[in-house]
Amino acid sequence: MAERFMSERNLKFVLYEVLDLESLTKLPYYQDHSREIFDLTLDTAIRMGRDLLAPAFQEMDKQQPQLVNGEVKVHSLVRTFMKESGEGGWIGAGFPYDAGGQQLPTTVAMAAGFVFGAANFAAGAYPLLTTGASHLILSFGSDELREIYVPQMLSGKWQGTMALTEPQAGSSLSDITTRAEPTDEGYYKIFGQKIFISAGDHSGVDNVIHLMLAKIKGAPLGVKGISLFVVPKKRLDPDGTLVSNDVTTVGVYHKMGYKGCPITQLSMGENGDCRGYLVGEPHKGLSYMFQMMNEARLGVGMQATSIAAAAYYASLEYAGERPQGRKIATKDPSLPQVPIIEHADVRRMLLFQRAITEGSLSLLLQCSLYADLAAHSEGEEKERYDLLLDLLTPVAKSYPSEMGILSVSQGLQILGGYGYCDEFPLEQYYRDIRIHPIHEGTTGIQALDLLGRKVVMKNGAAARLYFEEVYQAITPALQDPTLKPYAEKLQEALGTLQAVTTHLVGFALKGEVELFLADATLYLELFGIIAVAWQWLLQGLAAQEGLQAGPTEQEALFYQGKLMTMRYFYHYEFPKIQGLATRLTDGVAVTTEMNRELFAD
Amino acid sequence: MAERFMSERNLKFVLYEVLDLESLTKLPYYQDHSREIFDLTLDTAIRMGRDLLAPAFQEMDKQQPQLVNGEVKVHSLVRTFMKESGEGGWIGAGFPYDAGGQQLPTTVAMAAGFVFGAANFAAGAYPLLTTGASHLILSFGSDELREIYVPQMLSGKWQGTMALTEPQAGSSLSDITTRAEPTDEGYYKIFGQKIFISAGDHSGVDNVIHLMLAKIKGAPLGVKGISLFVVPKKRLDPDGTLVSNDVTTVGVYHKMGYKGCPITQLSMGENGDCRGYLVGEPHKGLSYMFQMMNEARLGVGMQATSIAAAAYYASLEYAGERPQGRKIATKDPSLPQVPIIEHADVRRMLLFQRAITEGSLSLLLQCSLYADLAAHSEGEEKERYDLLLDLLTPVAKSYPSEMGILSVSQGLQILGGYGYCDEFPLEQYYRDIRIHPIHEGTTGIQALDLLGRKVVMKNGAAARLYFEEVYQAITPALQDPTLKPYAEKLQEALGTLQAVTTHLVGFALKGEVELFLADATLYLELFGIIAVAWQWLLQGLAAQEGLQAGPTEQEALFYQGKLMTMRYFYHYEFPKIQGLATRLTDGVAVTTEMNRELFAD
Repeated sequence: MAERFMSERNLKFVLYEVLDLESLTKLPYYQDHSREIFDLTLDTAIRMGRDLLAPAFQEMDKQQPQLVNGEVKVHSLVRTFMKESGEGGWIGAGFPYDAGGQQLPTTVAMAAGFVFGAANFAAGAYPLLTTGASHLILSFGSDELREIYVPQMLSGKWQGTMALTEPQAGSSLSDITTRAEPTDEGYYKIFGQKIFISAGDHSGVDNVIHLMLAKIKGAPLGVKGISLFVVPKKRLDPDGTLVSNDVTTVGVYHKMGYKGCPITQLSMGENGDCRGYLVGEPHKGLSYMFQMMNEARLGVGMQATSIAAAAYYASLEYAGERPQGRKIATKDPSLPQVPIIEHADVRRMLLFQRAITEGSLSLLLQCSLYADLAAHSEGEEKERYDLLLDLLTPVAKSYPSEMGILSVSQGLQILGGYGYCDEFPLEQYYRDIRIHPIHEGTTGIQALDLLGRKVVMKNGAAARLYFEEVYQAITPALQDPTLKPYAEKLQEALGTLQAVTTHLVGFALKGEVELFLADATLYLELFGIIAVAWQWLLQGLAAQEGLQAGPTEQEALFYQGKLMTMRYFYHYEFPKIQGLATRLTDGVAVTTEMNRELFAD
Repeated sequence: MAERFMSERNLKFVLYEVLDLESLTKLPYYQDHSREIFDLTLDTAIRMGRDLLAPAFQEMDKQQPQLVNGEVKVHSLVRTFMKESGEGGWIGAGFPYDAGGQQLPTTVAMAAGFVFGAANFAAGAYPLLTTGASHLILSFGSDELREIYVPQMLSGKWQGTMALTEPQAGSSLSDITTRAEPTDEGYYKIFGQKIFISAGDHSGVDNVIHLMLAKIKGAPLGVKGISLFVVPKKRLDPDGTLVSNDVTTVGVYHKMGYKGCPITQLSMGENGDCRGYLVGEPHKGLSYMFQMMNEARLGVGMQATSIAAAAYYASLEYAGERPQGRKIATKDPSLPQVPIIEHADVRRMLLFQRAITEGSLSLLLQCSLYADLAAHSEGEEKERYDLLLDLLTPVAKSYPSEMGILSVSQGLQILGGYGYCDEFPLEQYYRDIRIHPIHEGTTGIQALDLLGRKVVMKNGAAARLYFEEVYQAITPALQDPTLKPYAEKLQEALGTLQAVTTHLVGFALKGEVELFLADATLYLELFGIIAVAWQWLLQGLAAQEGLQAGPTEQEALFYQGKLMTMRYFYHYEFPKIQGLATRLTDGVAVTTEMNRELFAD
């Protein structure tokens, strides 16, 4: 692993200078907190990442989880890290004091998650899932469920999972068949199979708590018949001991990457003795689960960003140390070779990595800030932040996932043959990051969510609010000669986005739903580039402010580097919207006219 | 592995209907051949691919080569396949009869290579390297070298390699330090280290023959001092037995993919007894080696295309069988689920895979045809084909390699979670294909070759000839109402390419070499999209011809599928040139202005 896996300076730049995280401490809910506490939290996370997580990064890839005698054996770091995540308050960092949490902003918890993920993505997944699962019980579970499960989960003794997918029901959740039979004892009997369950069973905890979707006998068809259950691997006997709950681990997948965390296949009720505890009301399970899914989607976007960041610093380090070739204008073989960072093409690849990584980080922390603001405001203001978060969640999940892959790939390319071999960490990052456009809703599903639901909901209210937000960056930037050309580009792009949206929604209005959504994935790509361009303009504003405040020489270099990366984004990534807009508005149906027979040979 | 790894129908469509391969048989050199012989050759290759190579595809990935007692142990298929490649005449397929070859067109040999690569990419690499190495000895070696080495190599008993890279000299070959000390015995003593040598040592052959670059003591600095040597692993004693030639295998790399073929690290002359035999004249080694490098570059492009094709058919098969969700306009959960190929987004991904794969295949076979025509024509005609081949080689290497990665990635995405696991072959294809933008000259090196050398050589002669070739597709297509819109788009794009080229060459004319070449990689990308669009227009013309000839129903579906894929390419891939052209002509320097200090944090 490379020396550095993330930049503390950049993380704090985004949190404090771009997003003004400190302003949150004015809210009564966060009144105990301060920048010092946030800094201390992040410093601790960075130390844990460096000293605890990073050293096991490659080892966890080599020693894959094994299913032995019905239990999944994982690397010993998992137990240590879950324990520290519990004792250090990381799992419940964002929860209220009265729920056993630290009452820290989600934004700070997400930033810590970024650090953990950059140090060791697979390890970071365990507490992340536990946070989401316990939050779901807190939000919708009965007092009894909260009391039994949440403290154990927040302490890191019990793992939480989200158990949705089944062999016949992946993207199509309406087709789940896991069934829940009511009993007179206050619980349901669960029967069924779940597949692709991350951390679904492992030796790093004493118990695993599945937040599981199932259908109660006689429930309505489709998503309206889905209920949510707590299904523990081991349940508490009346005498307080843990006994088997008839959840069998049938298999562990052999994955290309993300090997430090097992993805399992589970079978419930093989002996007719699997008990599930209903969360909230019957048939409302999917709406509850969306809380965890939305959090997990931001979590996935952040994990992708983490991996991309670690890959960026690894290739940056290599590029500064590896001598190869000479400056292109002076190819004199008697001169010594120069480090490859001196070559424009290598700088282009590094700038690409940096622009994607830092743009994604900024977008995700922006979303987290909206989550914090929505959670602690009322009425119209709350609705505003909720809508912005809803709109941007599929973007903040997909852009870092899709572009993160390309970013890591460029990082690998910088190392040449070494990038393809396991002496350097790039090949592992490349394998690890590939899962992100798949899990927690594929990119295609996110695209349908964005265009088919979020953009059009409440007559486009979220999209209007979003445009307002973007203008809050454009307006001051237009006043700054350095930033003006970029503010103008962004303004123009909003017009393009508007035109594309109107064109596509036109199909919906004519009832041509298939044409409306056929290229939703490309629409998501277009939307993502503009969203990250917005974040880069915000970073540009903050950098200009930093430069005007009389910085030290080193700080000035940081801000100038930011501005160069912003320029890179606008000159290299931004023009991609032209081709996308052309495609999205040319009115020619290809994929809907294509049919199976034409794929025959 | 999926049922099908390539399409025989498509391969023959490109060879006979698009490229008119049969016309080659009118040349005296190929007078013994006929379409029947070509077909028989391809049918045999397909059978070998299916029965011999494909069954070991996943096994060779799991059982990586191991260095045991100084020799690299590989899967038993390697020996079998090398033997069959020798006995079946595959290694020397394109060589003249008098050199022990089959005198088949290179185009047919490349098509067979495509089949082998699609069945089992790693296995296909062994004979491919042997062909290139023996061709180099045939072209530039002494009679003695030809007699000793070529027959053994063509028989598949001895492996050939290209041994260029050293720890300090990868992309920068001018910095090699392997040295050759003259002796009075007709050979040189070789001292040095080579790294990243594919098939550099293995148990599937009796000997390994390295075509190795080294510098003779006192040679000029840089590339002008590089000589080419035959350096066998074992040399022939006067009594005819093979004895060690002091070439030590120091290590085998642990790679992310391409695991069926060892990449080795070699040390020459540890005991002062490594003999090298000079090929051709001293100091001209790099110019000789370019023959093998250029062949290998097309070979790499073809291997990438092979993997992309195999991935396409694997995901096509899955998409036709996997039920998930319902048609977007009729989301009634009481209806059965439909196969995912019914979803527009999945069709888009499949069409992307198909457009990339079949476009790449066509471009590579076009290049092979130019090679055949150049080899068997004279004067101006020969120069024409040589120039076209020179110009297109970096494109035909890079486009399939770079876009093949994205194509396989979309294939993996179609399988969702299953794509990420090793029950299906997609994850292996994804790992395997990633090497192609790296070996045989990285994409960055190809880009410098295209823009810095090929486009400007002889005052742009090659580019002018290329435009003429493209017009040979545009002109007839303009007469066909179905193809006209695409012919017009391509015509316009040639104008764009011309303008971009003029803009960039302008920097060169002003002596601003760094600015001229800074974005060469993006220029290569732009050039590649247009080149593949040209091939798609040619395929469109052939499909229209096929449709007008009164085809069977099944054949008509094939031609219609071709036209749909052509439309896909023009409506989805082609618009990307807009953004690239904007970037390439906006005149703003970012990567050259960026400097190391600005990457500080």
